[in-house]
Amino acid sequence: MNSKQGTADSPDENFLYLTKAGIDTHQEPVVYMRSDCHVVRSEGFSAQGRVRVCIDGRSVIATLNIVTGELLSHQKAGLSDSAWKLLKAKEGDKATFKHALPVESMSFVRGKLYGKALGLEAARAIIGDISEARYSDIQLAAYVTACAGNNLNLDETIAITKAMVECGEHFDWGEGVQVLDKHCVGGLPGNRTTPIVVAIVAANGLMMPKTSSRAITSPAGTADTMETLTTVALSFERMREVVQEQGACLAWGGSVSLSPTDDIIIRVERALDLDSEGQLVASVISKKLAAGSTHVLIDIPVGPTAKVRSVELAQMLADLLVETGAALGMKVQILISDGSQPVGHGVGPALEARDVLAVLQRTKSAPEDLRERALTLAATMLEMGNACPPGRGLALATQTLDNGDAWKKFVAICEAQGGLKTPPVAPFQHSITAHKAGIVALFNNRVISRLASLAGAPNAVSAGIDLHVRLGDKVEKGQLLMTLHAEARGEMEYALDFYQSHLDVLHIEEEFV
Amino acid sequence: MNSKQGTADSPDENFLYLTKAGIDTHQEPVVYMRSDCHVVRSEGFSAQGRVRVCIDGRSVIATLNIVTGELLSHQKAGLSDSAWKLLKAKEGDKATFKHALPVESMSFVRGKLYGKALGLEAARAIIGDISEARYSDIQLAAYVTACAGNNLNLDETIAITKAMVECGEHFDWGEGVQVLDKHCVGGLPGNRTTPIVVAIVAANGLMMPKTSSRAITSPAGTADTMETLTTVALSFERMREVVQEQGACLAWGGSVSLSPTDDIIIRVERALDLDSEGQLVASVISKKLAAGSTHVLIDIPVGPTAKVRSVELAQMLADLLVETGAALGMKVQILISDGSQPVGHGVGPALEARDVLAVLQRTKSAPEDLRERALTLAATMLEMGNACPPGRGLALATQTLDNGDAWKKFVAICEAQGGLKTPPVAPFQHSITAHKAGIVALFNNRVISRLASLAGAPNAVSAGIDLHVRLGDKVEKGQLLMTLHAEARGEMEYALDFYQSHLDVLHIEEEFV
Repeated sequence: MNSKQGTADSPDENFLYLTKAGIDTHQEPVVYMRSDCHVVRSEGFSAQGRVRVCIDGRSVIATLNIVTGELLSHQKAGLSDSAWKLLKAKEGDKATFKHALPVESMSFVRGKLYGKALGLEAARAIIGDISEARYSDIQLAAYVTACAGNNLNLDETIAITKAMVECGEHFDWGEGVQVLDKHCVGGLPGNRTTPIVVAIVAANGLMMPKTSSRAITSPAGTADTMETLTTVALSFERMREVVQEQGACLAWGGSVSLSPTDDIIIRVERALDLDSEGQLVASVISKKLAAGSTHVLIDIPVGPTAKVRSVELAQMLADLLVETGAALGMKVQILISDGSQPVGHGVGPALEARDVLAVLQRTKSAPEDLRERALTLAATMLEMGNACPPGRGLALATQTLDNGDAWKKFVAICEAQGGLKTPPVAPFQHSITAHKAGIVALFNNRVISRLASLAGAPNAVSAGIDLHVRLGDKVEKGQLLMTLHAEARGEMEYALDFYQSHLDVLHIEEEFV
Repeated sequence: MNSKQGTADSPDENFLYLTKAGIDTHQEPVVYMRSDCHVVRSEGFSAQGRVRVCIDGRSVIATLNIVTGELLSHQKAGLSDSAWKLLKAKEGDKATFKHALPVESMSFVRGKLYGKALGLEAARAIIGDISEARYSDIQLAAYVTACAGNNLNLDETIAITKAMVECGEHFDWGEGVQVLDKHCVGGLPGNRTTPIVVAIVAANGLMMPKTSSRAITSPAGTADTMETLTTVALSFERMREVVQEQGACLAWGGSVSLSPTDDIIIRVERALDLDSEGQLVASVISKKLAAGSTHVLIDIPVGPTAKVRSVELAQMLADLLVETGAALGMKVQILISDGSQPVGHGVGPALEARDVLAVLQRTKSAPEDLRERALTLAATMLEMGNACPPGRGLALATQTLDNGDAWKKFVAICEAQGGLKTPPVAPFQHSITAHKAGIVALFNNRVISRLASLAGAPNAVSAGIDLHVRLGDKVEKGQLLMTLHAEARGEMEYALDFYQSHLDVLHIEEEFV
């Protein structure tokens, strides 16, 4: 099986010196090489091909962009910021290059598209490859799309959840310790109850090591909001210390690597504006399991323009959450809530943080609905955690908030995480007023979220919307309805353009005489 | 609805001078901008965001890569080769930049994932946006994935076919003119009958303006093979002239823009190694319709390792092809053929071209099976086109091949397209011999295709495999089974690595005494 012909060069000559290209391609690792360099020619690489870049036993798979100009010398290969970081490269490192072998786990994604369910082996292979950055962005898009909608059944969801937990770090708070957690299945702008609930629950001596995610398709996630108030990117050890000291934390899940593939998947879901019920359940439950939670309360707001549109859908999702949790040894309780309009006044990280502070500090401007929702959730959790007899949760939660204990606990947690900050205020603001008199009859949550996103949220933390009216309010022509907040002029204009073509953000119905 | 605050700068200041970045990102347009330039800061752009780049009323949507180093000055934005070409930019052009509005047609892709069928409106919106390069690579991946497998029904397939025809150019050969065409639903390495069939059919005075595609996931498409023999990238006008002069052509469909979205979709399907039956049918039928074909013969090879694995699947695909054709006024006939082993000796563009020449020139080394298959197809087409009475097609086809008329016609067509070339021979060759004696009992077409692809086919045109044995052949230990051909050392090594771990390319069964 031998007799080579013409393969003269030694493999040792197949190297280039690495240099930082100084290009941020976000998460996808990219390698830049000249079309006429010896490696591209001898290996037969072509643009957008997948190349394994190796130095000293370490390697990374990167997408090849071919340099057709004079950006690089013939002896160099450039790496994007992400490839540079993943490979832990240094300027001038000698690297070799190979065609990346096809990612074998993609065959499971292909099988899924032909109706073959994803078993545990498949889930482990896919999630493992994603966590090792072996999927290109288009492969991630294919996986996310294959799982989209309700294309994952219970067993598949359990398998993916297990695989996601296995490839990250875990907290272990000790045998028999009761660890509480909550989660909201987004879609309701401004529904930022978590910081309030954590403060109330922890003030009553229960353990609640809360990790939150950043926004997927919404203008803010709890991690985005909390980041305007304190440090949320805690290391694994730092988070453990905060919880041991305060009984709780309010950290970003991504930085503790509890479910490292989740952020990778979420970024592609966000770019495609695509959700998957099974992937959502796997994402939620895997993080709770990795955080060591034993009792989890999940809030599912339902409304015609919320993420979940009907009670039937909410029930389906609830079952999937409860059963996936149960299969993995976790008690999950569901609260289906009203999702017909945004919660509080602010939509966007800093504006929501302002509302949270108002509720905790019991100021006059505190939004009543945010307070009510937080109290209802905290009440259930106090009962789940046996901090009070059944039926007494609401009284205890209200007392904890009103006597200032919750605020004290919140400040203590923020101090432990690195100090309490004041949320920033956006430099650009624009008032939107009523074009006619009448009653506020309808909010379109999706359009509100989109509007806040276009204004820059969550990346621009002070951007978003400040709502000044609620369902049922009577408004005069010219009355202030909302204020748009943005950090950049272009984003404000972009949001205003969108608003002009989507006046259905809220609907004013004229009163009949 | 007014009262802006803080939006001081004039929009006119929001420009940068364009420069060619000299980076080939293949099809996805990319724009490079400094993280600290005034446009990125005022618009709030972030890495991998979608940006509309505008000059003088023209614009292109590009993916943003953020320059974190010193590649660009603050006054400049770089464009990838594809963005540069699409925008028809010139060095120093003054461009403005906006957030690209979300691609509205993606909502139809999302709907499809939730089980909502793609209607004509959806298909037109999606295909229109793809043809205008409004989809990013990950959005293309989501669309391709949503259509993958058998996820498109007949109505959806018809809708996509219509939309694909509408957005390209059309040939019109005149009222009532009979225009023949053929197609093979790939998956069988080396099955390069088209050039032979076109020569026989055209030599008998029938009109056959053949356009072919490049390989999707296989090591060669007919366009790849023909390109080693003559020019296949003909303009619309040039193709019309060739057909009017010769009654036929052998052109690449992509260059005449008959179905311009097809190549864009195919590139992503290839990168994901993903096929879609409906998309395949839409791809085939749309090209035939745009080429003005009225009668089309489609060859579906069936075998355990062919693209179509069972007669049932072939029949399903056949029905979809016939019905889609009928819905759009085209007569489609199907030939289900044996797909148990590769056809001819060569696999890869140049090696297959060599086999085609051998059959047309009736040399001793001409592969008998390729000749037989081509004659069977030509016979059916001669009957479809009424060049002979029913039942007389095979005799006429054989006569046309054996008396040299087909070869003469083939040479004339190639001359009309720009001259007949000699296919190149690969500089690197490697022999693979039998590791034991026995009978060749099985070919794995998929592994053979993969092996030829890894050796560089179709991009490296002379790369591929030359097979020296066929099913049922008795071989001795050490006997030559096949020769690998490659144009680059790296590709040869890559193919050999793969071969070592996939010895099931062909299976030798020991004889029992």
